[in-house]
Amino acid sequence: MNSKDRISLVHGFGGKETYELLDRIIFSKLPLNLKRVEGGVGLEVLDDGAVIKFGDKNVVITLDSYTIKPVIFPGGSIGTLAVSGTVNDLVVMGAQPIAFADSVVVEEGFDVGLLNKVVDDMLKLLMELRIPLIGGDFKVMPKGSLDGMVITSVGIGVARNPIIDINITPGDRIIVTDPIASHGAVILAAQLGMLDKLEGIRSDVKPLIGILPVIDKYSDYIHAARDPTRGGLAAILNEWARQTNVTIVIEREKIPIEDNVRDFLEAMGIDPLTMASEGVAVIAVADTYADDIAKDLRSRGFRASVVGYVEKPRNEFLRGKVVAITEIGGRVVVEARGYNLPRIC
Amino acid sequence: MNSKDRISLVHGFGGKETYELLDRIIFSKLPLNLKRVEGGVGLEVLDDGAVIKFGDKNVVITLDSYTIKPVIFPGGSIGTLAVSGTVNDLVVMGAQPIAFADSVVVEEGFDVGLLNKVVDDMLKLLMELRIPLIGGDFKVMPKGSLDGMVITSVGIGVARNPIIDINITPGDRIIVTDPIASHGAVILAAQLGMLDKLEGIRSDVKPLIGILPVIDKYSDYIHAARDPTRGGLAAILNEWARQTNVTIVIEREKIPIEDNVRDFLEAMGIDPLTMASEGVAVIAVADTYADDIAKDLRSRGFRASVVGYVEKPRNEFLRGKVVAITEIGGRVVVEARGYNLPRIC
Repeated sequence: MNSKDRISLVHGFGGKETYELLDRIIFSKLPLNLKRVEGGVGLEVLDDGAVIKFGDKNVVITLDSYTIKPVIFPGGSIGTLAVSGTVNDLVVMGAQPIAFADSVVVEEGFDVGLLNKVVDDMLKLLMELRIPLIGGDFKVMPKGSLDGMVITSVGIGVARNPIIDINITPGDRIIVTDPIASHGAVILAAQLGMLDKLEGIRSDVKPLIGILPVIDKYSDYIHAARDPTRGGLAAILNEWARQTNVTIVIEREKIPIEDNVRDFLEAMGIDPLTMASEGVAVIAVADTYADDIAKDLRSRGFRASVVGYVEKPRNEFLRGKVVAITEIGGRVVVEARGYNLPRIC
Repeated sequence: MNSKDRISLVHGFGGKETYELLDRIIFSKLPLNLKRVEGGVGLEVLDDGAVIKFGDKNVVITLDSYTIKPVIFPGGSIGTLAVSGTVNDLVVMGAQPIAFADSVVVEEGFDVGLLNKVVDDMLKLLMELRIPLIGGDFKVMPKGSLDGMVITSVGIGVARNPIIDINITPGDRIIVTDPIASHGAVILAAQLGMLDKLEGIRSDVKPLIGILPVIDKYSDYIHAARDPTRGGLAAILNEWARQTNVTIVIEREKIPIEDNVRDFLEAMGIDPLTMASEGVAVIAVADTYADDIAKDLRSRGFRASVVGYVEKPRNEFLRGKVVAITEIGGRVVVEARGYNLPRIC
């Protein structure tokens, strides 16, 4: 390791650079039996959570740190985000959340009223969802050592049939549950002082608890599920395509997105496929049930859409790649890499 | 809530002020059924971890953030600390650690070699203890927004008979497993550039896995166990005394402490009882087995000592108080409050 190597922002964007760094300093050093609890799922699969079997129960555990700036934004706060993000990681594993814990780190001088507001957002969601807050930690760093706050949440859930993202096969179709990229667009606009350009748009941050009955009902036909946060849809689909050696084809015009969000991002030269959502799931399902699942989701208030499909690579170049069919019918490779924002989640 | 209230360092010291803040903004707002999973233990008891029952298994979960500065110190690093602190929280709950996850937040520009060293310290301990690393998160904050790094660890364990610290009764005796305060003294000296005053002393940071067989063997007679980190022995003993309305009496001359640590802290005017240890447990045990337990611990290489006992308050003033018998036989009340160091853990 070159001693002059420095961490750059790109290491934190959740894409290829993050993977390569963590693989070099962590994953490659651990044998398989120290990456998971026997009989469960852990670091050997880079999914949203890990699974430990206790008797006949599949217990799912997820851990995430939130560093978003600003702490309060249109549609929520770091508190809303911490609960939603953690619940969503459980939901896309097919798990019912049963407990939550959080560790809060703030700087000396942090406004207690603001802390209280953030905590209230967190508690309000937990109470609505009836998820107990069973523990946590609280630390204060001296003035000048932390800009804002860091919240780290752990979620515990139980899955009848955990969704491990390794079963994608040609023929599967891809469903997106709601309009994408609103969260990313709002945070970008807030950081740039351009919120006036996004009138009426709020972050999509929300707990995806409402999709659980659908996941449960169709669990045998759901081959993968994720929430496209850092790196957006482009990152998740590329990860799926690469891991399973398929081509994933996306029809751009079918991807749900708010007009204002599309216009704002277009004006900024940013592909919405690379922008984070915090209340949206992307699901790969068996062809036969794709329309039923989308319909079921829509009947529950989601603006779900079948946006693409999985195919056998037509040639070597397309193996592990994501291809978008553009509005005028062209086929274009979609890279995982795009515009990245620090402190988006 | 006064909007001009600001977080101060004292809110982060784990004592009365931390409790009062968290009680005001969190604990008091949650009904009991949202503080724990039914049948388990959660926020209603402020212990080192929470308990969830899965079938006949008592699963213990603990979550802590580490912000220590410096990141590397004599005896370990923030990586050693994150694993040790988390393992110790499980051990003092009577739980065998079975899985670990960690979330790392660093600043842009952080030295990759240093990150690698910290991660290696973490992995080395996990491998020694054969605890799988099952998941985590990695975030990068822009330059200037975080001094150093924050690691948040979650530990999962299984306890045959979880030790919940509510059974302390008059007659119990107090055991300390090893010399106290070395961690606090080393970090204080490092922060002040005075490490030359502590020749030969290293932080006591270590996983307390070696005490588990003793805890297991005597579990029916162990009424409480904690690791005295932030706030030291004084904080834990005061918490126990207050919660159970007893008086805890400590004989100062029986408390194990390295000579150099005692001399250094004395010169600084700091009571070692208020200094953090990161590889020491304090245990309240039934009188009958106290000497056997201490002996068993010593046979396993610990420098354990019976340092005090629990008594019925002799008067109203002494209810919920900790009293030290000094080297010259006097009785003095020991407050939870003492010298506090930011970023000690």
